[in-house]
Amino acid sequence: MTMSTPARTGLVQEPTPQDVRRRLLAQVEDRLARFVAAERARWCAVAPHAAVPIDAVESLPRAGGKRIRPLFCLTGYLAVGGDPADPGVVDAAAGLELLQAFALLQDDVLDNSSMRRGQPTVHVQHAAEHERHGWSGEARRYGEGVAMLAGDLAFAWADRLATRLSPAARAVWDELRTEMIIGQSIDIVVAAQRDADPELARWIARCKSGHYTIHRPLLLGATVAGRPDLTGAFEDYGLAVGEAFQLRDDLIDAFGDAGASGKPAGLDFDQHKMTLLLALVMQRDERVRDLVTGWDRGGCWDAAALRTLLEEAGVRADVERHIDDLVRTARQAIAGAPLAGVWRAELADLAGRIAYRDR
Amino acid sequence: MTMSTPARTGLVQEPTPQDVRRRLLAQVEDRLARFVAAERARWCAVAPHAAVPIDAVESLPRAGGKRIRPLFCLTGYLAVGGDPADPGVVDAAAGLELLQAFALLQDDVLDNSSMRRGQPTVHVQHAAEHERHGWSGEARRYGEGVAMLAGDLAFAWADRLATRLSPAARAVWDELRTEMIIGQSIDIVVAAQRDADPELARWIARCKSGHYTIHRPLLLGATVAGRPDLTGAFEDYGLAVGEAFQLRDDLIDAFGDAGASGKPAGLDFDQHKMTLLLALVMQRDERVRDLVTGWDRGGCWDAAALRTLLEEAGVRADVERHIDDLVRTARQAIAGAPLAGVWRAELADLAGRIAYRDR
Repeated sequence: MTMSTPARTGLVQEPTPQDVRRRLLAQVEDRLARFVAAERARWCAVAPHAAVPIDAVESLPRAGGKRIRPLFCLTGYLAVGGDPADPGVVDAAAGLELLQAFALLQDDVLDNSSMRRGQPTVHVQHAAEHERHGWSGEARRYGEGVAMLAGDLAFAWADRLATRLSPAARAVWDELRTEMIIGQSIDIVVAAQRDADPELARWIARCKSGHYTIHRPLLLGATVAGRPDLTGAFEDYGLAVGEAFQLRDDLIDAFGDAGASGKPAGLDFDQHKMTLLLALVMQRDERVRDLVTGWDRGGCWDAAALRTLLEEAGVRADVERHIDDLVRTARQAIAGAPLAGVWRAELADLAGRIAYRDR
Repeated sequence: MTMSTPARTGLVQEPTPQDVRRRLLAQVEDRLARFVAAERARWCAVAPHAAVPIDAVESLPRAGGKRIRPLFCLTGYLAVGGDPADPGVVDAAAGLELLQAFALLQDDVLDNSSMRRGQPTVHVQHAAEHERHGWSGEARRYGEGVAMLAGDLAFAWADRLATRLSPAARAVWDELRTEMIIGQSIDIVVAAQRDADPELARWIARCKSGHYTIHRPLLLGATVAGRPDLTGAFEDYGLAVGEAFQLRDDLIDAFGDAGASGKPAGLDFDQHKMTLLLALVMQRDERVRDLVTGWDRGGCWDAAALRTLLEEAGVRADVERHIDDLVRTARQAIAGAPLAGVWRAELADLAGRIAYRDR
């Protein structure tokens, strides 16, 4: 049996821009793993119990995840001509992923989510361990405490990775963090007060998805490369792709299956959360508005009735058309930006991949 | 009626070093207030609900507090000859106080404390508000969520104030934060597992009091002034004063009254927490060790019996003598340090004021 090998032409194949980004993404994984391993070695040598929060931080990137923020950070960096050999952008992208670990650890406590990336969430795991061993105190407080402190550790470490950012890049980093925390805070206030204001729901989604997930990571990458001038184009692109990203997330939550996303389906929906999807739909369909604002007057909506309503009468198809518009808007925003052509095409492609993903 | 006025000699009175520090501490208050007011204006203009976490952050410094970390930071700075006109140290000291607001917001959730600085704690306040209004979801999760996110905001803002630190000062800042979070994490693990290892309890206290409260703030101030060489003297001083500080805290918790400290008395003690006080006493008195390790074998200690035991037979007096030793050690550590004489005297005095405070 013979193995076919690629023909050798004597020419070294030029790596594609995507190859370069893939190599940098692999460096981000490596940076994260080495950073956490060094911290573990240092702390566990003096206090072995330090493994508890450190393992919890590490469990998140290890369990998977889309690495969407590092991806946009590296894309923003390379799109404006950043040098792939400079380790600064790898640190910044790794910092974004640790920041996301912080956000997820705390989000899961805020939402009392049971599963994340196909595994029990950190607070649920640790509460169960507490119960299994019959430890002292309350199992729930312990589990949530471990998740909260692991989140703090991820937050502080993210910042360590961002230490060498220039003042301009640091300003983007700071805004990204504050925006995410304020967005999250307003989200829980609005949910508690059953505030069904669709404009507010869209503002929260812009904070948490548009800015935090797309716009700021892109801008951070570009700013690390010394090109902070792209903020307008990246903001327009980020807000459109972010809205599409969040709508897709909400559609997967409302209609998807748990196996694909790694979280239980219907969680937001059945918890009567004012998602971006509902905000959009209630502005477009008065039957949905009546159902949701009935909840706003003190009751709880009927999740089954709402799901049926979204399926029938073209509401869901209408959201899909809105997502199409958003993808078009994002592509227009980037079409005129002063970026290398190959990266304009890549950003256009990314918008579609995010808007039409199935998990 | 005539008002007496100070005699005018024509000479301008030279401010004492303590006057200079007092002026800088006032600038720290002002910096904190202006920083939070600017953030409030910026965020509430776009989303009025942002006031919820921002008010929660602000409530802590507003309700009082000893400002012990800013005090040590400014002392370290001035003691090595830092320029009182440079605003950098004011930012660093204000950052330390916001970091402490973060620590307290989250500590109170971890310990389920009801009172802080004479007022209901943030999570208790917000859970009560949730209940009063009959909001959606669980009141406890909401209250704890607000406290957690307000803590995150304080943490991120602390860092904004630390933005202009030099790389050397930044390293001190980073170590201080990580140490505090790791110390807190190990604290909750040890409490849950009823691990009565006195060495571990002392290690946790060294993290949380020695390093976080005294040593690192002093070193941060000195490093902001360009003098990172004092780490040895400041560490010896910080660990001794920190141990005295924590022992005094534990004595006030075990024997003090709630009115003076602003928190309920006996909280740690009655929650069977392995405090530094107990760790020390069980190493010195086998009756205490038997009582505490009886708890370690699965039961709970008898708080009343333990309190009586600490009072009688000189155990409490023995702790007071140990505090005397610590104050002496701290004064020796600083006696040979290359600092202006007036600041050596001030640090010696501070050690006593902290070790012998009554609240």
